[in-house]
Order: sequence, then structure tokens, then C-alpha cells
Amino acid sequence: MWFEDMRAGQVLRSARAIVVDGDAIVAFARQYDPQPAHLGEASALDSLLGVFCASGWHTGSVTMRLIFETLHVARGGMGAGIERLRWVRPVLAGDALRVTIEVLAVRESRSRPDSGVVTYRCTTLNQHDAPVQEFTTTILMPRRAAG
Amino acid sequence: MWFEDMRAGQVLRSARAIVVDGDAIVAFARQYDPQPAHLGEASALDSLLGVFCASGWHTGSVTMRLIFETLHVARGGMGAGIERLRWVRPVLAGDALRVTIEVLAVRESRSRPDSGVVTYRCTTLNQHDAPVQEFTTTILMPRRAAG
Repeated sequence: MWFEDMRAGQVLRSARAIVVDGDAIVAFARQYDPQPAHLGEASALDSLLGVFCASGWHTGSVTMRLIFETLHVARGGMGAGIERLRWVRPVLAGDALRVTIEVLAVRESRSRPDSGVVTYRCTTLNQHDAPVQEFTTTILMPRRAAG
Repeated sequence: MWFEDMRAGQVLRSARAIVVDGDAIVAFARQYDPQPAHLGEASALDSLLGVFCASGWHTGSVTMRLIFETLHVARGGMGAGIERLRWVRPVLAGDALRVTIEVLAVRESRSRPDSGVVTYRCTTLNQHDAPVQEFTTTILMPRRAAG
């Protein structure tokens, strides 16, 4: 998709869900976030969270994959940052995650005439349609080459 | 560390750096963020970013590892979210990342007497002391059991 394909008010949904199984939760955690809640059922019992669940950064990374597949930005988008990311409820072993992307605003870029600026809210949902993560982000998307 | 170990104004620095090499950038991208800028030098040339660099979520995940090693929160912390995350400059193949954690505020938790609330700013720096990522976050940290 290009900048010109985006409209404020548009709602896009990922075509598939990604299942986050227990092995994937532990593998990600061992590398990036080895806190007890993310290392297995037993170790999670004594954690502050008290439940075995995915690292928030794991949820964010799986969300990025789903955004990639949903927006499929031509030449790749360029994200400058994230506003108000919230991990609303834990991602449990076996949860199947999807995203909903709601376009909030689109505008031309002052500094880069080859691109446009798109702001969207991304909500990651589990198989019960319950949100597990929410954030708002602004990205640069390329414009179609002038004809 | 426990909640009682944290003081507003405290500045903590990771003891080591983590090197993000090109193979790690591509491996993370293939799984979570397969946009052209993250898949190799050649594919990055035609990307909007124009430079081969790590996915922002990769930088965030490496940052989480450095936070883990620096704070080493007893029983694991519990992060509810992230404010104003900014990817300030690209993380290039071979960059060595460190974090600086600046404690902004500490307060007791109203809802959980076993915990305290800590707000900190986290800056991820490369080997040139240039920031590559910044955010602010509020986490729940366990209190030492009453003696």
C-alpha cells in the first residue's frame, strides 16, 4: 500500500492470527526478557504478575509482523515512534493474536515530498476479541511516483 | 532490586553493551518485521529509510534485556505501558547498545500494598554515545516483605 491508499477513518484488520505458544514465549524471554513470569508456569507462580505470559516486547514484535502483513507498505514504512503503548491484559500460552488498525489522520510530508504521514491506532486482540495491547503511532509512507 | 532501592533522580547504567550484528538484524526482521530496510544492505537501498538497520522492535527488545540486567527487579517487574517511544536514529549492523535509566518518580501503590510504582526514562545509546531510542515507562516493583 502507498500513502494515497490511506484515508482517515479507515479500519484494517489482519487476515490471519498468529498463535503465541508456550515454547515461543520462553524462547523470546530467554533472549530478551528473562523475567520469571515469561519463563514457564512454575517460575511464573512466584512472579509479581503471577501468571505465565508473553513479554510485552514479544507481543509488540508479533504485532509488528501482523501490521506488516496488513499494511504491506511499499518500500517499507518508517516509524518514528509510539505513543501511549498499553499492555492491557496478559498474552497467555496458546493465544491467537490479530490486529485492528484504525487510521486517525493522513497528511502530506513537509520535509519529504516523496512521502506522506499516517497516524493510526493499533489494537492487538486475542481469540476472545479482548484487547491485549494498544498504541498509537505515526509513520512515513511512500507516495506513488508522479505519473 | 526492590521498590525500596529506587529513588527519584537516580541514574543507572547497564554494566555491558549488547552488539547487534547484521545476522541478528536479519534474523529478527525475518520473523517479526520483514521490511526491506531490515533484510540486508542490498534490499535496504530501495527502502524509504535507505539504510540497513534494525527493526525498532528489535532495538526495543535488546533494550528490555539491558533493563533486565540493570534493574534486575526482584520477582520481575510489571510494566503497564510505554509513553512516547522514539527511535531517534537507526541502529546499524555492529552497533553496541547500552542503556541509561533515569528514575523520575517513585510512589507506593494504592491498589497493591505489596508493590510500589516507579516511573523512569530509558535511553538506549550506541557506541558513539548517541541515543538511538528513548521512552518513559511506569512499572510496578515488589516491596521487601515486612520484617
